[in-house]
Amino acid sequence: MTEDVTARLRELVGERNVLTGDELADYSHDETFMDSRPAVVVRPGSTDEVAAVAALCNETRTPLTTRGGGSGLAGGPVPLAGGVVLSTERLTDLRIVPEDLVAFSGTGVMVADLDAAAAEQGLLYPPDPSSIAISTIGGNVACNAGGLRCLAYGVTADYVLGMTVVLADGTVLRLGGPLRKRASGYRLLSLFVGSEGTLGVITEVVLKLVPRPRHHATAMITFDSIEGAAEAARRLLGRGYLPTALELMNRPAMELVADLLPPGMKADREAALLVERDGSDADFCLQELAEMVEILDGAEDRVAQSPNERARLWEARRAYGKRVRAQRKNVFGEDVAVPISKMPELIHRISELGRQHDLTIPAVAHIGDGNVHPAFVFDDSQRSLISPLAAQVFRDALELGGTVSAEHGLGALKRDFAFQEHGEAVVGWWHRLKDMFDPNGILNPHKLLPEAPGDDGFLDRQPGWR
Amino acid sequence: MTEDVTARLRELVGERNVLTGDELADYSHDETFMDSRPAVVVRPGSTDEVAAVAALCNETRTPLTTRGGGSGLAGGPVPLAGGVVLSTERLTDLRIVPEDLVAFSGTGVMVADLDAAAAEQGLLYPPDPSSIAISTIGGNVACNAGGLRCLAYGVTADYVLGMTVVLADGTVLRLGGPLRKRASGYRLLSLFVGSEGTLGVITEVVLKLVPRPRHHATAMITFDSIEGAAEAARRLLGRGYLPTALELMNRPAMELVADLLPPGMKADREAALLVERDGSDADFCLQELAEMVEILDGAEDRVAQSPNERARLWEARRAYGKRVRAQRKNVFGEDVAVPISKMPELIHRISELGRQHDLTIPAVAHIGDGNVHPAFVFDDSQRSLISPLAAQVFRDALELGGTVSAEHGLGALKRDFAFQEHGEAVVGWWHRLKDMFDPNGILNPHKLLPEAPGDDGFLDRQPGWR
Repeated sequence: MTEDVTARLRELVGERNVLTGDELADYSHDETFMDSRPAVVVRPGSTDEVAAVAALCNETRTPLTTRGGGSGLAGGPVPLAGGVVLSTERLTDLRIVPEDLVAFSGTGVMVADLDAAAAEQGLLYPPDPSSIAISTIGGNVACNAGGLRCLAYGVTADYVLGMTVVLADGTVLRLGGPLRKRASGYRLLSLFVGSEGTLGVITEVVLKLVPRPRHHATAMITFDSIEGAAEAARRLLGRGYLPTALELMNRPAMELVADLLPPGMKADREAALLVERDGSDADFCLQELAEMVEILDGAEDRVAQSPNERARLWEARRAYGKRVRAQRKNVFGEDVAVPISKMPELIHRISELGRQHDLTIPAVAHIGDGNVHPAFVFDDSQRSLISPLAAQVFRDALELGGTVSAEHGLGALKRDFAFQEHGEAVVGWWHRLKDMFDPNGILNPHKLLPEAPGDDGFLDRQPGWR
Repeated sequence: MTEDVTARLRELVGERNVLTGDELADYSHDETFMDSRPAVVVRPGSTDEVAAVAALCNETRTPLTTRGGGSGLAGGPVPLAGGVVLSTERLTDLRIVPEDLVAFSGTGVMVADLDAAAAEQGLLYPPDPSSIAISTIGGNVACNAGGLRCLAYGVTADYVLGMTVVLADGTVLRLGGPLRKRASGYRLLSLFVGSEGTLGVITEVVLKLVPRPRHHATAMITFDSIEGAAEAARRLLGRGYLPTALELMNRPAMELVADLLPPGMKADREAALLVERDGSDADFCLQELAEMVEILDGAEDRVAQSPNERARLWEARRAYGKRVRAQRKNVFGEDVAVPISKMPELIHRISELGRQHDLTIPAVAHIGDGNVHPAFVFDDSQRSLISPLAAQVFRDALELGGTVSAEHGLGALKRDFAFQEHGEAVVGWWHRLKDMFDPNGILNPHKLLPEAPGDDGFLDRQPGWR
């Protein structure tokens, strides 16, 4: 990338919004191990400025990687081809329109801030990834993020009603709008949801909101085996109960957050389920929770007796992700999903892998969605094990009819397994779409689109792994 | 179309599944006034047969129009360019997998049959258009159908997890699968939802199901003005209540179904709201319904006191569509939506139009979704009025930030207003997508894609209107 391009970027977004030198370090990584420096970071303040930046990058064939909160877990925002990182941090206009039950949000708004603004109007933005405080709504939409209450509420894609998106050549498209129903033409908008910045740069979204539940009833139930917990979850869903959230933690995961649990609770059993029911009536929530606790039939159970106790249970669950990544030991996390009924089998296979190779594998699961996050924690001497084991978990998930990415996106990390998951015919159509929207291939190169079939060495080929 | 093509079709799907002559009449129309004969009807029995039919049509440049139940309200399944009608009536394999909370369904299955099969397992397929008994799941997916309980549950697109789709050249794509979460690559599947048979022929879908609510509480509340009812609905949503259904009927609509109402109820006020809350606890449903009835604050209210009374209220609502279309007088119905807060204004404008032109306009609305179906009922002498008035309602909806099609699709009827609704840039991308998936333009010609900007004469140019 030339000095000339940087100079022109300064003209487009202003001197202070073009970063170079040491400031680039903060924009070179996400929450994985990956790291790659861009030539320059731009922070446009409007859709028009984003369009001008895209047009310049397209004209000069400069790679353009969009970055939200940088909390990605698949390398999505890491600029593997260098070039320009476009940070959405200044796209933070936010407007809740309670009478239409929608939010208009710049894509740089943090999801927690968006939901807090909705809460002020008695409304809820349901999708709630664990990263809610550090991930942007733009990143959530680009990755079709999930979260902890998707079981009852659905995923990000179900809440995106409209968007403004800048294409590679700087064209601005306005798609959809604040309507809960629209059966009018091709659903272009849906194509950008989950496209990980490879088809366009989303600058604003229109989101569906729902009335905020006034009451919650929450319990933690422990089990003597991980398989027993998975079977209990399957039993509950089979009986027609759909809790707001149904979260599994195995013992190593519980141990990481033991100090955050309510007084008197210990991480001394093999698994725990965190189950919650929300609603507009307190008695009803508690009654249904009691029924669910009875069906789950664990070794011990603890129904939260106060808002404070409920908050602690959730704090423990939400803190897990940060704790596992903050360990001094190395860690590699996954995000696979299978059909609900296959969850006990997948969890069994993952546990067996850990036993066979003497690896600690803390795991949390949005178990009602069939989605598990095992984390391989390893010593330096075990590093060479990890890539084949991670690949084995991908293969297990696919063999059980699942996906290698339930809610994190493919990014650079998992893109190559798209061949195995989707087949060559489908991937062929992905390439046709990519070529149509981004003929020069400037948008987030080396992400999402597979480059070679994924194999046991996939991790070893990622920059920064060794 | 040549004799040779017909002979080859007979080889592909069997003699008895190729219809010609008088049998074509049943496949020439939908539930609009439109009528156009195909050269031949084929009834393939498998995805492979559909693929073979598509490949032959593509090779011979024969128009191919897919038909589900034929209950369309925008001309979608009417073969305007002749050629082949592909009926999905034999694609009726249906399998509910309760342990995964999903259904695998051939696209020829009627939505009511699908939901009945789900009910046997204690599950629910939520989207429920009024046509549920006569429309297929394939047609519902192709049009991104809505329905009466979308307010709480969302639209068809929110429930499609996977599909098998045959492209114009006969390629078979399998997209997605029985997973509630997937963030893995471009969401091609979403592009086929709502594409009205113009991008491919969907042969099988995988659908998300939810636990079936065990209890319902239902009430009808009447109002002395239509605007008053619309304001009451807005007030209810603004107070944080999200009923399962919130249906508005104006007086002419009520009069059409007066004989079906529970004993003692009359169609003697200007508007009625049908409101329902479902859930797993009877007392809770009744309690929340009572709160909603109080907030709605109508002239009279009637809470259903028995399952039979509830059934009658819904039967009256559901019978409306058939009754209005069965009138001896001419009728033309619309399907517009606006942001929720704009609903009173839109309803006011439509009522004013009726008064000014001495037209009866029965109207029902899924008012919580901002979606209204006004029906222009007219004498032959008034026919020339209808096209400009219908166009005026489209313009009103668009001016208020809405859509010309909330849940019926654009079809042939409304395709030209896509320019006004979406703009030329977006429509340009629709054409690029169409050219990519169907380069020879054989799939459902003259549908969805606009051909000229919609104007006051749009209806007069439709075949069969005069």
